[in-house]
Amino acid sequence: MKAAQFHGRGDIRVDQVEEPRCGKGQVKMRPAYVGICGSDLHEFTAGPVLIPEEPHAITGTKYPVTMGHEFSGIVEEVGEDVTRLSPGQRVAVRPTIFDRTCSACKMGLEYCCENIGFIGLSGYGGGMATHVVAPVEHFYLLPDTLSLEVAALIEPLAVAWHAVSISPFQAGDNVLVLGGGAVGIGVVQVLKLQGAKNIIVAELMENRKRLAQEFGATVIVDPREDDLTQTVRSITAGQGADIVFDAAGVESALNSAIPACRTHGTIVNIAVWEKQPAIRVNELMYSEIMYMGAALYDESAFVDVIEALNNGQLKPEKMITNKIKLDDVVEKGFEALVEHKDRHCKILVDVQAG
Amino acid sequence: MKAAQFHGRGDIRVDQVEEPRCGKGQVKMRPAYVGICGSDLHEFTAGPVLIPEEPHAITGTKYPVTMGHEFSGIVEEVGEDVTRLSPGQRVAVRPTIFDRTCSACKMGLEYCCENIGFIGLSGYGGGMATHVVAPVEHFYLLPDTLSLEVAALIEPLAVAWHAVSISPFQAGDNVLVLGGGAVGIGVVQVLKLQGAKNIIVAELMENRKRLAQEFGATVIVDPREDDLTQTVRSITAGQGADIVFDAAGVESALNSAIPACRTHGTIVNIAVWEKQPAIRVNELMYSEIMYMGAALYDESAFVDVIEALNNGQLKPEKMITNKIKLDDVVEKGFEALVEHKDRHCKILVDVQAG
Ligand SMILES: [Zn+2]
Ligand SMILES: [Zn+2]
Repeated sequence: MKAAQFHGRGDIRVDQVEEPRCGKGQVKMRPAYVGICGSDLHEFTAGPVLIPEEPHAITGTKYPVTMGHEFSGIVEEVGEDVTRLSPGQRVAVRPTIFDRTCSACKMGLEYCCENIGFIGLSGYGGGMATHVVAPVEHFYLLPDTLSLEVAALIEPLAVAWHAVSISPFQAGDNVLVLGGGAVGIGVVQVLKLQGAKNIIVAELMENRKRLAQEFGATVIVDPREDDLTQTVRSITAGQGADIVFDAAGVESALNSAIPACRTHGTIVNIAVWEKQPAIRVNELMYSEIMYMGAALYDESAFVDVIEALNNGQLKPEKMITNKIKLDDVVEKGFEALVEHKDRHCKILVDVQAG
Repeated sequence: MKAAQFHGRGDIRVDQVEEPRCGKGQVKMRPAYVGICGSDLHEFTAGPVLIPEEPHAITGTKYPVTMGHEFSGIVEEVGEDVTRLSPGQRVAVRPTIFDRTCSACKMGLEYCCENIGFIGLSGYGGGMATHVVAPVEHFYLLPDTLSLEVAALIEPLAVAWHAVSISPFQAGDNVLVLGGGAVGIGVVQVLKLQGAKNIIVAELMENRKRLAQEFGATVIVDPREDDLTQTVRSITAGQGADIVFDAAGVESALNSAIPACRTHGTIVNIAVWEKQPAIRVNELMYSEIMYMGAALYDESAFVDVIEALNNGQLKPEKMITNKIKLDDVVEKGFEALVEHKDRHCKILVDVQAG
């Protein structure tokens, strides 16, 4: 079968590989749409990062590996003991793989698993292939209301949903979001749905600014043009934002956001940092700001996002800025995102289109 | 009168200055014992830091300023409208000065005041003088059980008390304390009193290690000899510390403490950093660790420490490693702390001894 495989930094190829077989407790699926994620791009430009060079502790996978961890598709076959799903059903994939034995898993925090793996990065082969096989727990049945395109957005929206859920955000709060990429845009949607007062987005790129506004941001700040701290303070009657979500991972932006956050406010990091930021810790301290990390999502965030899509509370279609063929994934996907970052929010690979 | 004044970096002198007069709503006090604090030392070696070069927003003070913000003494005189205290009474001083108008003050978080000042750094003249005058709100009546020496330790103990209070610490928790200086030793005492399970202290200096142990640390780790992360993990059955208190402000120690902290654990910063640390944010995120700052203390922490000293729950006498005369404050105080940091926990200036 056809599969987009990572062979090393800058080296992703559409190869012919053996079609996987569906074993006991597993589901074989025909991927429909697969999103290209910031971490996929990071693997392409600076990897392998999460892609294992040695066999992964849980899955035994190492590269070359088939990419794609944000995806939807159709069940082709179910293995022995699988009763929950049947061929022809439409599903989305939760890519996170847990060992269920480490201290985080024992605390019930599987999504913080010390050996965490991901379908499409470190296990089983990802969505950028005409077929994929994985244990049944990874597959979520889709309501009829959801298109397969939108279903490919469930995973990044679950990241945003979880970040808001574990933060102390309450309806009526003033919020600052750093970065208007796919995750930042996801956070804006979740905040709007949950009743934020002002949603201030700090972003440099024009298309992202526009998209943030379309999704409900009340103020867009370009930190090159306006002082971020002053702008946020003036919007919030001098007090500062109640919550800051950092979906940018830029040291200067984070350090401007600290004095833009109110006393006893919270900064939630969702960004994956390429370099450890030198943080204005003294100011964090004097204002007793809480700096917390939000990692991925638990299973309930995944279910909640599907429900919010089903009842129309989330309408993320405009996040999809292009749909491309699997054969074009390098040129029109990875390379386009590197060269024209500003043009795109989420590019989907239409796997069955060839 | 005699007063130890800061004139600039490395330049503290015992000068003759005018004796202050007691105005309306004020108290005039004869300082007895004054602790030299890490921030005093920081002013001496690298200042002015908190000492204002321009008139302070609340007090109008700028340097030269009389040092000393951890102190006890005896009321000499009370101004008009002061009924709560009378001459001859023994008191301790809460040095924090608030504007009561900024957004933090309006939230009831005066100790996070955006214009915060300190008696002995940025207002009114400090304790290292034969007399001091300040508004009555700064003076706390001492129970008879407390010596004036111990009363000079209330302020640093309140810092530790507050840090533990605002953290999610619960009895039975495993705790890692970075740094065995006066604040770290204070945290160890508060943790022991509040029922911590293991209190692991990371420290390099021999005297501090010994003192930490005397005050109730269960394990001392020297990060040069043993791997901090591994040691903490092995003591906590592989899980990691529930809470970390950083009273060191050393980048490498903080970064070793991140993987030594459990999933969903908390790191509380009490240290004042000389340089912004480059933090392992990705690891904070994947384990969803909360990094929070603890700044100073509210008034209740001050009252609680006095009560804990009164009922014998806190016995901090051994923190006092030397008592010196005001005339010797530079040589036997500041310079001794710079040259022989290892020898001392808290040096008290016995002001009335001359
Ligand atoms: Zn695990
Ligand atoms: Zn204030």
